[in-house]
Amino acid sequence: MMRTEGRAKRLPRAVRERQIMDAAVDVFSRLGFHAASMDEISEVAGISKPMLYAYLGSKDELFATCIRREATRMMEAIATGVEPDQEPDVQLWSGLRAFFGFVGENRASWMVLHRQASTQGGPFAVELTDMRGRAVSLVAALLTQSTKAPATKLEAESLAAALVGAGESLADWWLDHPEEPAGVVAARLMNLVWMGFGDLVDGNVWHPPSRR
Amino acid sequence: MMRTEGRAKRLPRAVRERQIMDAAVDVFSRLGFHAASMDEISEVAGISKPMLYAYLGSKDELFATCIRREATRMMEAIATGVEPDQEPDVQLWSGLRAFFGFVGENRASWMVLHRQASTQGGPFAVELTDMRGRAVSLVAALLTQSTKAPATKLEAESLAAALVGAGESLADWWLDHPEEPAGVVAARLMNLVWMGFGDLVDGNVWHPPSRR
Repeated sequence: MMRTEGRAKRLPRAVRERQIMDAAVDVFSRLGFHAASMDEISEVAGISKPMLYAYLGSKDELFATCIRREATRMMEAIATGVEPDQEPDVQLWSGLRAFFGFVGENRASWMVLHRQASTQGGPFAVELTDMRGRAVSLVAALLTQSTKAPATKLEAESLAAALVGAGESLADWWLDHPEEPAGVVAARLMNLVWMGFGDLVDGNVWHPPSRR
Repeated sequence: MMRTEGRAKRLPRAVRERQIMDAAVDVFSRLGFHAASMDEISEVAGISKPMLYAYLGSKDELFATCIRREATRMMEAIATGVEPDQEPDVQLWSGLRAFFGFVGENRASWMVLHRQASTQGGPFAVELTDMRGRAVSLVAALLTQSTKAPATKLEAESLAAALVGAGESLADWWLDHPEEPAGVVAARLMNLVWMGFGDLVDGNVWHPPSRR
């Protein structure tokens, strides 16, 4: 017993916590918050249940920690993906590609963030509202920097809220249509918000720089 | 006692139920699902608690009934608002105006539908998912009928999902900025999805027919 604990403790705490959270995101995304059990999470993580509690607290605390981590990872992926020195359309395109790229490669994260967290309510709703607020602020800042279109702060913020909502809703739709490639889904939203239906009706489609 | 019950019963059941639901939507929107009590709802509705239960069941059942009614009212307002014989842009504009008009005049409905229901989860999430599905189908049908843009069913559906998400998110943002007129908010989304940022950057703005 002492030996097992000794061996388990050799892993740095950060590494151990990451393993546990990876396991938790996997279990939460597959089973949903209610059906997910600490037994199954400890089994998938390969540690004992007492250690699971010692590291990351109750199921509620673990779930909240997962939401925070996945939200932060996603925001970082988008912030890293955006190419700030490019033209506005390329900035938007790189941001959308980063977002759908992240969701495509981390469907479990998106499941937990968007579906599980939003249908659990309570304290998790606060985490989600906070995350959305940060996403809207980031997009509003990008819009203000890169276009002359939003004349006022309110206008930039409301357009950013619409854009974030469109992205969330489309990513959610995509969970049910995983056969569609990330680039196709991203390009669809790019065309909608950059070209607009007005141009799409006339057959004018937005092309990435490489295809011009 | 008999006399009071007798008087209460003179109202047709449908009218009585409508009064109760109006009271329930008001209380749920102000206090949230958890803090809302059947005591307060019966007080606002002006009927006894036993009658409240007899008419519309438990708090859970009453909440689900409210969601269904408000969702149906909203969908009807949008379907009635859309002018199917008009050009595609005017159809979209009339739909958006109907949506934001409904939300503006029924903020309590939108609070219950979007914020309270989505943060309660459980069985209410099913009602909401169903409502969103109907909204996305309605918009997808409009897009397919009125534009040549979405080439495939998947494309129409995904663009509709994006548009519905943008509308929801913007309406949610609007709850926190009620000083903005409905027409201004609707016109912003119209410009985003019809003109697109590409045109907005160049200062090309969409105008309703009356201002052309």
